[in-house]
Amino acid sequence: MNVLIVYTYPHHNSLNGVFLKKVEEGCRENTYVNEVKVMDLYKEKFDPVLVFNETKRRRDMHQDPELANYRKMVTWADKLVFVYPIWWGRPPAMLLGFIDQMFASNFAYRDTRGLFPEGLLKGKSAVCISTMKGPTHYPRLWLNNAHKVLMKRALFGFVGIKRVTFFEFGSMEKKTGNQAKKLDRVYRYFKKIKQ
Amino acid sequence: MNVLIVYTYPHHNSLNGVFLKKVEEGCRENTYVNEVKVMDLYKEKFDPVLVFNETKRRRDMHQDPELANYRKMVTWADKLVFVYPIWWGRPPAMLLGFIDQMFASNFAYRDTRGLFPEGLLKGKSAVCISTMKGPTHYPRLWLNNAHKVLMKRALFGFVGIKRVTFFEFGSMEKKTGNQAKKLDRVYRYFKKIKQ
Repeated sequence: MNVLIVYTYPHHNSLNGVFLKKVEEGCRENTYVNEVKVMDLYKEKFDPVLVFNETKRRRDMHQDPELANYRKMVTWADKLVFVYPIWWGRPPAMLLGFIDQMFASNFAYRDTRGLFPEGLLKGKSAVCISTMKGPTHYPRLWLNNAHKVLMKRALFGFVGIKRVTFFEFGSMEKKTGNQAKKLDRVYRYFKKIKQ
Repeated sequence: MNVLIVYTYPHHNSLNGVFLKKVEEGCRENTYVNEVKVMDLYKEKFDPVLVFNETKRRRDMHQDPELANYRKMVTWADKLVFVYPIWWGRPPAMLLGFIDQMFASNFAYRDTRGLFPEGLLKGKSAVCISTMKGPTHYPRLWLNNAHKVLMKRALFGFVGIKRVTFFEFGSMEKKTGNQAKKLDRVYRYFKKIKQ
């Protein structure tokens, strides 16, 4: 299994950076994992702005030469792992801009006449590891699970990715936030996962 | 009443562009409106990437000199109007990046010891005009209204903006989408609104 980690945090000196390391560590000890690649959107200075106009047509986005390398990595991966913080109840604009451009029609899905398209990324799986300052019952009880619903239904389901696992960690800035236990949970998950 | 329109679409040659015009038209004919300003994030090449690190601290974001002009306009406005398309169930990364940076602690809200902070934008109101390709029952029935919940609760409520109005328009690319009627509805709303 090929694992692609999409990391979205301004730097590595943070809990998000440690979660990234834990994913890599677990994968290294997992014989089902063939190779791990990291796409660090901030480090690579990914431009999250989706532009289209009369000369750059949206329908050609799936073959935009500037994104060719990113498409190659997504195609290569069997498992997509996203590591990011929750800001305003959802992922940072940087990650959402990656999605705006990468999950293009005729690359990630193909329009059909029905309500739902044909998902072209089917067969892949996804893991979302997100961290937030507040407690996890805030999005669960107050936000109708908006973040998870958007990722699972509006995004992954739409492009054919059915197996989606969430690690949503809250209280990240609290001393009583059980950070070590949460990091270990992620490490053990990636050490054992078979597909 | 001062009205600030935040426009987020790659160009103006689209229904979003016409909705923008309708807001302006309605406001022009409304004697309760003192002045209208437009912030066109694409045209202004706003950089949606929130960066913080050891030299650029997140806690100083509310006084970032590069964002001073934007903060001035938000402070000036009594009503914030957002015009944008729905991509993947939520606003484009460009608008969310504007939010990531503009709605900073000590500008938009102030941390308290409770679960909710003190909203520093209280007294203002917001209107969201969003367009989407699919039908509106898709987000309503399938996505738990994630977009509206995130805007109303995770964002506006958090910074003290209690009066929020949504115009969520679906089937925008269909000939039977009643576009003219929807545009007129927006025009009439802004022509009449008193606060």
